[in-house]
Amino acid sequence: MVKTNSSAGPPVFAEMEAMGERARAASRKLANLSSTVKNVALNKMADHLEARFDEIATANKLDMDMGAAAGLSTAMLDRLRLDQKRVKAMAEGLREVAALPDPVGEVAGMKRRPNGMWVGRMRVPLGVVGIIYESRPNVTADTAALCLKSGNAVILRGGSEAIHSNRAIASILDDASASAGIPRNTIQLVPTTDREAVKALLKMDRHIDVIIPRGGNELIRFVVENSTIPVIKHDKGVCHVYVDKAADVAMAEKIIFNSKVQRPGVCNATETLLVHKDIAERFLPRAAVALREAKVELRGCERSRHIVRDMKPATELDWYEEYLDLILAVKIVGSFEEAVDHIAKYGSSHTESIVTNDYHTAQEFLKVVDSAAVMVNASTRFSDGGQFGLGAEVGISTQKLHARGPMGLEELTCLKFIVYGDGQVRE
Amino acid sequence: MVKTNSSAGPPVFAEMEAMGERARAASRKLANLSSTVKNVALNKMADHLEARFDEIATANKLDMDMGAAAGLSTAMLDRLRLDQKRVKAMAEGLREVAALPDPVGEVAGMKRRPNGMWVGRMRVPLGVVGIIYESRPNVTADTAALCLKSGNAVILRGGSEAIHSNRAIASILDDASASAGIPRNTIQLVPTTDREAVKALLKMDRHIDVIIPRGGNELIRFVVENSTIPVIKHDKGVCHVYVDKAADVAMAEKIIFNSKVQRPGVCNATETLLVHKDIAERFLPRAAVALREAKVELRGCERSRHIVRDMKPATELDWYEEYLDLILAVKIVGSFEEAVDHIAKYGSSHTESIVTNDYHTAQEFLKVVDSAAVMVNASTRFSDGGQFGLGAEVGISTQKLHARGPMGLEELTCLKFIVYGDGQVRE
Repeated sequence: MVKTNSSAGPPVFAEMEAMGERARAASRKLANLSSTVKNVALNKMADHLEARFDEIATANKLDMDMGAAAGLSTAMLDRLRLDQKRVKAMAEGLREVAALPDPVGEVAGMKRRPNGMWVGRMRVPLGVVGIIYESRPNVTADTAALCLKSGNAVILRGGSEAIHSNRAIASILDDASASAGIPRNTIQLVPTTDREAVKALLKMDRHIDVIIPRGGNELIRFVVENSTIPVIKHDKGVCHVYVDKAADVAMAEKIIFNSKVQRPGVCNATETLLVHKDIAERFLPRAAVALREAKVELRGCERSRHIVRDMKPATELDWYEEYLDLILAVKIVGSFEEAVDHIAKYGSSHTESIVTNDYHTAQEFLKVVDSAAVMVNASTRFSDGGQFGLGAEVGISTQKLHARGPMGLEELTCLKFIVYGDGQVRE
Repeated sequence: MVKTNSSAGPPVFAEMEAMGERARAASRKLANLSSTVKNVALNKMADHLEARFDEIATANKLDMDMGAAAGLSTAMLDRLRLDQKRVKAMAEGLREVAALPDPVGEVAGMKRRPNGMWVGRMRVPLGVVGIIYESRPNVTADTAALCLKSGNAVILRGGSEAIHSNRAIASILDDASASAGIPRNTIQLVPTTDREAVKALLKMDRHIDVIIPRGGNELIRFVVENSTIPVIKHDKGVCHVYVDKAADVAMAEKIIFNSKVQRPGVCNATETLLVHKDIAERFLPRAAVALREAKVELRGCERSRHIVRDMKPATELDWYEEYLDLILAVKIVGSFEEAVDHIAKYGSSHTESIVTNDYHTAQEFLKVVDSAAVMVNASTRFSDGGQFGLGAEVGISTQKLHARGPMGLEELTCLKFIVYGDGQVRE
């Protein structure tokens, strides 16, 4: 994930510490800026990204050349590339964040206590957010915008492959926001690719309120094991579609096809299809035809391979697998309970969908399946901040604390208690 | 905090792992039990605690004898003691939890998306909660009850001084709850005082969803540094009362007196008094008289010592101190901003109160002070779950993620997304 640098040790720690202090100072001013100031800044940041495209392109070329020399795959290089269209999309993203409602300042649940004191909760920024991510440089702009809008200072640590592009973007954003009255150092990028810098970052619980890692398993494990700061994990998605015996077969085919094929490389794509035994004969052959036409490789349990004979056999390991590819594991279950137990045992608690026309089975599935998103008769691909109506997405949390499932702006804030008294003391 | 045991290593890890698996299995059944079943169980648990008092007393005597032999202070021994009255209070606590509303199952924010799909969030238990605490054995019953009510299995790790009392209580609670239809192993106590058991516990992120440490600084630091499970910290409270220039002097005196004196040994007691320079001459002398009558030691800044001449001088370290005792640091500030900056620099973001009759200053204080509880004209001692109307309190969180400030039953739950579709797929 990051390169080791022989200059590691105390100097990096001091540098990171100073960065943390600057972020904390900026966050205190930022927390109370009006929505208007923040929105003007976001629009200005968008304008500057477009106006200073040449700088971004020059920096990006450096990354692309280094990546090509280092033998990055074509897919990796494509994720790294920033052309005019992509920078324009980045700028549009910032304008969309500007248009979202500001979550800060809402007061909820204000109630009068028996002693006459009023107690409620006010929504405020978390403070300083640390984001550690890989590859795509657009994350730099997206997350900086979401943090700024929610009143948080941000410390960004992108992948080493994109360091030049990220530096260019962060510096443009900081300039543009400062010119619009946002405190300097609201947006900071860790300027080095030194692995020790990440370690130092993860111990700065005095300066950073939350760490959000976005990337592969290895990165997330590293963060969870080394951080003394609270972490919001964005882990893998082993999502399931369960076709109940009371399913509409045509709807089930449409939903599994969309859940698997529409965009297989993302965490809310389905990896395992569970089918009730009573509907398997009617459903599986037609679903197999459609999926194979889309070049999906099927890996079936023994029972399912009696129905669709030329599927590869699935092994125990397949049930745990996040393929992120055109591969689907298929299993016939004897009952609703077996489906639910399979999801609990092998799933990653991300997103699961049941296809059924039975009222009670639908309600029971929503109740008993313990995943971030649980659906009836819909594609798992909808498990997304935009699709759920949150406006913009910081990512999809796979943990239960603070934010579960798609995270919007509100999940970058917290609630503090506020009290209006008139001299109350405790007996 | 815990004793090291030479039998440490793999066997303890395997034992803890098995405990985690049992807790996870129990939590899956528990999550969907009706409120009625849980409430009947809680009342039965209360009855059994009272009925089996002799067992608790016998176990408690063992702890008391060991504690006395080990030279525990009188205060420590008093916290450890369980007499009939205290066990009755413990049982009453369980009955009160039974009477609280059940947070599980609430569905919030259900909205129709443009494609006709309904999206909302359902409140569900976190799953398995790990609680690490010191000394007082009543925490065993209190937290077990709150976890059960919110549908969570719990793994309890009490202090080694109370191991016999805790074992007796946990075993009575498990028996009583099982006899009322609650799954076995919903309430488990780590049976050993081996420090390695805590280390093992803190790495079980597959089985435990949140760790709540309750205790001193050292315990909390150990947990934060070793846990791969999300932690909700219950850290120290360096609380402030700020007497603004527009304060009602009599009210200010009443509030600082209550905040400091009513119960000095707890985290929401005030440790530092900040006074605006324009009111110091009128306010400080009379406040000093009242506080000293209650045997409060005052430690003042240089400026304040010109007004109340015989105060001890406060050093820089005093501003950081959580005395938990009848000691109060006193500082005169030149402005509202200086007061706010002092709180941001030296405070622990727990609870702060301003005394003022000025509308704008009051509103500004509520807005800009970044603490878990921010008050106007009220004693900091109100920062408490019961006082805030949350019904019962798991503790007071000093972090921003998930739960901030007093934690009630709701903070032992999370929200999962639920979707009602009728065949929607993503374009």
